[in-house]
Amino acid sequence: MQRILDKIKAYNTIIIHGHKRPDGDCYGAQFGLKNIIASSFPNKKVYVVGETSDFVSFVGKMDIISDDTYQGALSIVVDTAVQDRISDPRYTLGDYIIKIDHHIPVDHYGHMRWVDTNFPSCAQMIAYFYTKFQDELKLTEEGAIALYTGIVTDTGRFRFRGVSQLTHQMAGLLIKKGVDVEYIDRQLSVESMEMIALKGYVYSNFIVGDGVVYIKMTRDVIEKYGVTDEQAASMVGLIGGIEGYPVWALLMEYPTEIRIRLRSNGPTINELANKYQGGGHAKAAGCKLNSWDELPTFIKDAEDVVKAHLKGE
Amino acid sequence: MQRILDKIKAYNTIIIHGHKRPDGDCYGAQFGLKNIIASSFPNKKVYVVGETSDFVSFVGKMDIISDDTYQGALSIVVDTAVQDRISDPRYTLGDYIIKIDHHIPVDHYGHMRWVDTNFPSCAQMIAYFYTKFQDELKLTEEGAIALYTGIVTDTGRFRFRGVSQLTHQMAGLLIKKGVDVEYIDRQLSVESMEMIALKGYVYSNFIVGDGVVYIKMTRDVIEKYGVTDEQAASMVGLIGGIEGYPVWALLMEYPTEIRIRLRSNGPTINELANKYQGGGHAKAAGCKLNSWDELPTFIKDAEDVVKAHLKGE
Repeated sequence: MQRILDKIKAYNTIIIHGHKRPDGDCYGAQFGLKNIIASSFPNKKVYVVGETSDFVSFVGKMDIISDDTYQGALSIVVDTAVQDRISDPRYTLGDYIIKIDHHIPVDHYGHMRWVDTNFPSCAQMIAYFYTKFQDELKLTEEGAIALYTGIVTDTGRFRFRGVSQLTHQMAGLLIKKGVDVEYIDRQLSVESMEMIALKGYVYSNFIVGDGVVYIKMTRDVIEKYGVTDEQAASMVGLIGGIEGYPVWALLMEYPTEIRIRLRSNGPTINELANKYQGGGHAKAAGCKLNSWDELPTFIKDAEDVVKAHLKGE
Repeated sequence: MQRILDKIKAYNTIIIHGHKRPDGDCYGAQFGLKNIIASSFPNKKVYVVGETSDFVSFVGKMDIISDDTYQGALSIVVDTAVQDRISDPRYTLGDYIIKIDHHIPVDHYGHMRWVDTNFPSCAQMIAYFYTKFQDELKLTEEGAIALYTGIVTDTGRFRFRGVSQLTHQMAGLLIKKGVDVEYIDRQLSVESMEMIALKGYVYSNFIVGDGVVYIKMTRDVIEKYGVTDEQAASMVGLIGGIEGYPVWALLMEYPTEIRIRLRSNGPTINELANKYQGGGHAKAAGCKLNSWDELPTFIKDAEDVVKAHLKGE
């Protein structure tokens, strides 16, 4: 981290990149880092560039810069494991490239890298970086809001396994810096009427099997509710955790296949996923069917997984 | 707090009470405190008594004790502002009574009181009590799970305004003590099929006004889905935060009145609540109608509040 700070000190222009279709953590790490550098070194020029994302637009606004700006500049890329997904791709025009990420590394891009998969969010890495050099660095409320947003969104509100004592220490520090947790929650909780209507569809149309519930997301449903595939797929969480139904699935229709998001809060399901052209973790996996014709067999197999689990097998 | 610790040290039998229809924080504070006392002073007898609550039963099991047990015992009541709501009522049989609570005090019961409304959960008070005397006191993973559950449930997963740096410090400490955040989340996320079905009803039947959405919870709906009044009323959150609808309400039918849970993420609504036999906070209030006949007027008034807000009045 000291070497990163040295590089930041050495450059007058610093351009911060994230990934395509940025999420809350990407925005949080980008704008949090910008705030730290700009507040600590008022003479430096600091820009955040890349694709925009509406739902976290309260965190900050992307800068529009010309190619010339990259001359002799430092490029920092946050929260991005795959080189192809860096947004925008002009980061290579910089004089020196630093990668800061918490994902399992895929591409080892950049001249300097700080990658640590123990962090449940990239924003937590930036917050931690700030705390390590608190004597030299400044962070204002604006930056704290960005970093807190990143931490909250990537941990599902402090729910996921990577959350540690350090996560809460960083969150506490950011609150001390002025973060209004209710304000952030309100910003993140805004939903479109389309999404609310789709939730109604999911809750009213999911199918109840033997220890298994599932919902079919056919093309006509997705079109009728006017949502993106990603939004439709995110509905899998709605039918999770129902008492007596430890396995649940969402089936998304695509032209040549049915993609399945498979979840569990008990039985191990990745073997089932393996059987259907997929894989994943013990309790969150993905797989696919070639057509709806295979659905009954798949559900039967899922029910057998639950039964075996209940028998203690 | 020192005086509370002295009292705990002075008694051999300590009986911990909470409130009727206990929630996660009540359980968390009760079983967390039991764990601290029992781990730190193995020779003392420590009991937790009161009504049970299924959804947090993973936190601990209530003790069944006879009236005799109260002879010469210390009664500690947590998380309860109103004397009538203490469960079970035998706490008065104890030799000495201590109240520990974070609600605005209603009844000043007990011989000793520690009431601090700055704490967003009573479990956080117990955790804080532990940290103040860490040299003398012990807390095991079991107690940490209880306290973490209390903090998470009473803050809506660290979302509500009372959440402070101290909240996160306590949460971090509890994780250090062995809390598995995913385990707790899974326990708290279990929902009955009835509740899921009711969600489907709410999402499919809420009514869209001009900047206002609302749902009618009639007696036949509550009966049809087999849920408690409290479960039905909790559905108000489902229709909150919809883009373009900054005010929302849930209307619960009772034999002689309609009780309204009124919410906002923009306009101030407590004046509206005042007008309809109620009151509350700027963005969360309650009020009532004498019958459904008053509904159109109420909704019209709510729509006017939104309109005035949008005009910047």
